[in-house]
Amino acid sequence: MAWDPTFDVAFTPASVAVLGASTKKRGGGNGFIRGMQEMGYEGRLYPINPHADKVMGIQCYPSLAAVPEVPDLVIMAVGVSRAEQALEECIAKGARNIHMFTAGFEETGDESGAVLAERLREVAARGQLNIVGPNCMGIYTARGRISPWGKLPTEPGPVSMISQSGALGGEFSRLAADLHLFMNKVISYGNGYVLDCTDYLEHFATDPDTKYIGMYLEGVRDGGKLLRMVQRIAPAKPIVILKGGLTDAGSRAVASHTGSLAGQSAVWSAFFAQSGAIRVESIEEMTDVMQILTHLPPITGRGVALMGGAGGNSVAATDISARVGLAVPEITEDVQRKLRTFIGVAGTSVRNPMDVGMQLKGPDDYVRVLELVATDPGIDAIILEMHPMMSRWSSRRRSQRMMENLVEFASPRGAGKPLIVAMRNSGDSLSSERARLNMTRSFLAAGVPVFRSMERACRALY
Amino acid sequence: MAWDPTFDVAFTPASVAVLGASTKKRGGGNGFIRGMQEMGYEGRLYPINPHADKVMGIQCYPSLAAVPEVPDLVIMAVGVSRAEQALEECIAKGARNIHMFTAGFEETGDESGAVLAERLREVAARGQLNIVGPNCMGIYTARGRISPWGKLPTEPGPVSMISQSGALGGEFSRLAADLHLFMNKVISYGNGYVLDCTDYLEHFATDPDTKYIGMYLEGVRDGGKLLRMVQRIAPAKPIVILKGGLTDAGSRAVASHTGSLAGQSAVWSAFFAQSGAIRVESIEEMTDVMQILTHLPPITGRGVALMGGAGGNSVAATDISARVGLAVPEITEDVQRKLRTFIGVAGTSVRNPMDVGMQLKGPDDYVRVLELVATDPGIDAIILEMHPMMSRWSSRRRSQRMMENLVEFASPRGAGKPLIVAMRNSGDSLSSERARLNMTRSFLAAGVPVFRSMERACRALY
Repeated sequence: MAWDPTFDVAFTPASVAVLGASTKKRGGGNGFIRGMQEMGYEGRLYPINPHADKVMGIQCYPSLAAVPEVPDLVIMAVGVSRAEQALEECIAKGARNIHMFTAGFEETGDESGAVLAERLREVAARGQLNIVGPNCMGIYTARGRISPWGKLPTEPGPVSMISQSGALGGEFSRLAADLHLFMNKVISYGNGYVLDCTDYLEHFATDPDTKYIGMYLEGVRDGGKLLRMVQRIAPAKPIVILKGGLTDAGSRAVASHTGSLAGQSAVWSAFFAQSGAIRVESIEEMTDVMQILTHLPPITGRGVALMGGAGGNSVAATDISARVGLAVPEITEDVQRKLRTFIGVAGTSVRNPMDVGMQLKGPDDYVRVLELVATDPGIDAIILEMHPMMSRWSSRRRSQRMMENLVEFASPRGAGKPLIVAMRNSGDSLSSERARLNMTRSFLAAGVPVFRSMERACRALY
Repeated sequence: MAWDPTFDVAFTPASVAVLGASTKKRGGGNGFIRGMQEMGYEGRLYPINPHADKVMGIQCYPSLAAVPEVPDLVIMAVGVSRAEQALEECIAKGARNIHMFTAGFEETGDESGAVLAERLREVAARGQLNIVGPNCMGIYTARGRISPWGKLPTEPGPVSMISQSGALGGEFSRLAADLHLFMNKVISYGNGYVLDCTDYLEHFATDPDTKYIGMYLEGVRDGGKLLRMVQRIAPAKPIVILKGGLTDAGSRAVASHTGSLAGQSAVWSAFFAQSGAIRVESIEEMTDVMQILTHLPPITGRGVALMGGAGGNSVAATDISARVGLAVPEITEDVQRKLRTFIGVAGTSVRNPMDVGMQLKGPDDYVRVLELVATDPGIDAIILEMHPMMSRWSSRRRSQRMMENLVEFASPRGAGKPLIVAMRNSGDSLSSERARLNMTRSFLAAGVPVFRSMERACRALY
């Protein structure tokens, strides 16, 4: 189907009905009501339950028919046996935007699941229903103040996500928020019987608030259509895709999860080769790649300078870089000569990786090294290995000064080469974690991406 | 050379002299003095500096000759130009165990470096000196209370490490300590002109305190000897090796670091195929593999059950498992039937990956699932995905009860299949980190290895 623009209102709904609000605290659709409360949803919320006056402190309605308006969005959390009837009630009410949390279709492996799926499609077509799901967590929208995953940022960001999995959509939103990477809209669409990934892609392609798109896919109904759409959209809005179920075991897992046909590893390799999408293999890698995309200008070459990790760390980092396809070129003789005017010989290297003894040099000297390295035409980006507890090895003032200098260097007024930080946290304590969070926040605020390991930084960069 | 048993005393020295103690707080060998102080070293410590009465509050001696005994260990932190003379002073004193922190040899790339290296070898041979280094951080020994990396655990553990790099030796010791994995002895040996990795291996092979050996290698003088030694030792004491400098760029980094010849990727692939050593590609992976080795009995098959990660997380975990060579076999029909007696159909799967709704079920039911899955003959180990904030999604008592049940399950009295935990931390805050640290400690205390991501758990397991 083509995207129905009347669905757009579901991302900033003035009214939401929850079919299947429960008198039990954690039952039925109450998680969605809680999410809206935690997000500070300010529209009209209608819990529906024939046996209750109030649910979670909100006036309850006996049926959708009794609701005093046509809700912009209906969240359906009734049992699967009630699903078809509930859809008929939506049609009778004139409600057309529906998120079906309700599960129990093809993904159960029972034969009746496929029959139910077919009936659902028929009802949807007849009622012109826009259905997200079934068997999914639905919509997180920062501006609309709706979240199926509890409190998440209400500040909208440039990234939107289409996720066949609810858990991964929520997990990505949280991991991204940790990195000051804010989401605009996330759609978990589960079995995708009516609206499919290509429909959501159609929306995001023209959505002015969405600049980057993440996708977690299990099965896709029309692969050719997806390919054409990604080819068209990706040049303007980068698309990062995690494809689940590419191994035999993963394919079986997909069948149990959303009842989709996955597999076909070779087909997907061809898809990635042709589509222009960025392929990732874990949700962690998706956050890493999104950090690079959102924080840095496109990096034009493969040459990186590695700094800060002493000795064997530098060697290991160099191997990791080379293994993923980055180059760690030797610094030009001219720049090496300039560096040697203030860097002693013993225990150091100015060739790349740069082993210049971060903890021994003053904070100004360190940035002086960065600035000189940035003048090297073979260097396209600088990866800095840091440790959160370096502040303990140095004085507080020195480490503060170094952070200020690094942030200044990374700013557009700085030397103009992208800076990337890799920060491993050993010394597993709350004080080292506090230091890591503080340093990470300073870098992120300056637009410097921060990775948990050298390996993750390198993989994201290339 | 063969291992000289007179060097053994350097791991529990009754007396240590530091040649090159500085009147400046952070200069010369003062870091080593500070490390000994922080470790609570109780032997006799002799800082040596002709221009000071005291260094760091300790009585100072004008020369090695003036020290009132022959020290069990001399830490040499003088400049490279003084190095040869200082070695002669050791010979005159009768001191034979020396750690040379002093750097500035072949690793500088200067021609004079090779000449100096040759002279050092000559002096060492003449004086029968056991020299660790030069250009290295030397020895961390929990029992001997010496650490070049500041405060580290004083409780000795079963793992010893031979690291050509000082930074990686220290980093590994810290990362391992975070996982309650304690080190026995760590030797950072830098350029290794006199004692080389095979000499240290010779010592650890017969050292009753060392059960597992980690190695970080850059260049090796006698590869054939190393191969034969690893083949002989690894069956009794597992050896995990990170080889630095296997890429061209990494090889250049090695040359600048310890002046070694690295490279020869094909030779090393053959080495790993023949030696019986476990190959890792980063220091993180070394900690991961060491966790598996020290916590779990050998796992006999490839079959894993994946539990706890809902929906797309399960699918992604399954793909990751299959990609590294693990099998995620379907649970037998008999066990599936038993599971279905208490697990509803909608939104769940009991096929493997197990999508059984951790947050929905009671803590007892969850372990009941584990116990049933463990009876499946196709399952050799169980990987559990958890989130540190699950305690927030559930009641405190429920989550405490679940932790207790899991720990009980993992104990030798439990179902007898190894349990492995993968715990990602999103919700980047001190409270989630506190929860993660607490849960991690509980699991580690019960002998359950804990990994930061599914990917790392799978890679370590296979």
